Amino acid sequence: MCELLGMNANVPTDIQFSFSGLVERGGRTGPHRDGWGITFYENKGCRLFRDPKPSIDSEVAKFIQGYSIKSCIVISHVRKANRGRICLENTHPFTRELWGQTWSFAHNGQLRGIKRWPCLYYQPVGTTDSEHAFCWLLSEIRHQFPQRPSRSVALSRFIQSRVQQLHELGVFNMLMSDSRSLFTACGNHLSWITRRAPFGPARLIDADMEINFENETTPNDVVTVIATRPLTDNESWHTMRAGEFQVFRKGEPLPRLQSPSRPSNI
Amino acid sequence: MCELLGMNANVPTDIQFSFSGLVERGGRTGPHRDGWGITFYENKGCRLFRDPKPSIDSEVAKFIQGYSIKSCIVISHVRKANRGRICLENTHPFTRELWGQTWSFAHNGQLRGIKRWPCLYYQPVGTTDSEHAFCWLLSEIRHQFPQRPSRSVALSRFIQSRVQQLHELGVFNMLMSDSRSLFTACGNHLSWITRRAPFGPARLIDADMEINFENETTPNDVVTVIATRPLTDNESWHTMRAGEFQVFRKGEPLPRLQSPSRPSNI
Repeated sequence: MCELLGMNANVPTDIQFSFSGLVERGGRTGPHRDGWGITFYENKGCRLFRDPKPSIDSEVAKFIQGYSIKSCIVISHVRKANRGRICLENTHPFTRELWGQTWSFAHNGQLRGIKRWPCLYYQPVGTTDSEHAFCWLLSEIRHQFPQRPSRSVALSRFIQSRVQQLHELGVFNMLMSDSRSLFTACGNHLSWITRRAPFGPARLIDADMEINFENETTPNDVVTVIATRPLTDNESWHTMRAGEFQVFRKGEPLPRLQSPSRPSNI
Repeated sequence: MCELLGMNANVPTDIQFSFSGLVERGGRTGPHRDGWGITFYENKGCRLFRDPKPSIDSEVAKFIQGYSIKSCIVISHVRKANRGRICLENTHPFTRELWGQTWSFAHNGQLRGIKRWPCLYYQPVGTTDSEHAFCWLLSEIRHQFPQRPSRSVALSRFIQSRVQQLHELGVFNMLMSDSRSLFTACGNHLSWITRRAPFGPARLIDADMEINFENETTPNDVVTVIATRPLTDNESWHTMRAGEFQVFRKGEPLPRLQSPSRPSNI
């Protein structure tokens, strides 16, 4: 298994505090020593840092912890390999371009038989189940919508329908972005919290770090953080249900599309 | 205009010495202050660092200069914007996936009218001529070869034929890789040097730095460095001719495919 971390905000925000918690899970407070990665969106642009080393020992991770990159959408992942050897090309997040937008994807779980599913437009570079699932999912989206649909709800609904198919293969916790929205799917473990004014203090579970967001924000900021397990112990996180699909935009959870049926194998 | 730097080696090699020369051209010894980027291949995996800040002022560039990343193929670029504003998505190198391989591309020059050329399979994320040219070129390759051709010479020959078309639009100096080969095209300025045993000292033109490669290498290492202008002043660089196309693999220049006709506008 792996651990996921995502952020969606209405103003460019740095994720150093939450990322510091995740990094600890990559070798110290958690067993996820098989690489890590992070994507930062800056409008349509996307920065991707990946390293097959444990995040806790990674010079690149240390650099990211000390260098403020402000972004409205972030996806990060620390890996515990189950399928695919430890190497750069098997390290999440994975990225591809569709409709002139950079999509990125990170996954936690196992998907039995996914490699038999066809990838029409995108091919995996590495050998993980996860990248194969991403290539299949993005191929499905491209096949359904050769051009970007004008209604974003049509896109979200379609992604949700295909995510439901992936749930049938095993455990599928996902963070994915097209540079505009953050799409999240819960197979078994995913929680989120939306912070807004009045902001208060937050204390990491995995490291001796505390912050008062009141000093870091303006009254109009809205920031959602999503993680496999809550990162702080003095705030109230929303725990997603198995099979739940949630889209975030401009820092806010969007209204639920429909109540999905519970996947049969969970 | 911009400046390019590439490396191809038969063993994973770090490019810190040459990169230090390029970084100086990104704001100190050269006017290329509009962003910079670098891709490092590690087998099929690819690391991409990009920053819209001048390389000379970039914290990310400082990190790369101080952190040894060993790679067999590297592509780097410092930008002087002519088309497309200064932002992350307009920063080279650009990357896309084809046949389960990560392709990366950097360009120096201008291409009049390129935006009218069709991009069938890949769409630009930003607004540069360069990314459009890459999307067109990769779409042409994909259209011609839906699967990777078994003979790499067929691929090289096809790329060369399409690069000839790009030369017709203006100035096209290019570095491109599919993770196996480094493809280079000279529009007006591109030089390279192949270093092999017996190795000797090298001195940067743009910074007060000298190195003796004898202390850094083994007798079997073969390393080619390609740059817009030579980076050292005590070695003999090969200056490419306008219209020249050269493929490098395992550190060595491959035999020339054919003598291309000189582009009409150079």
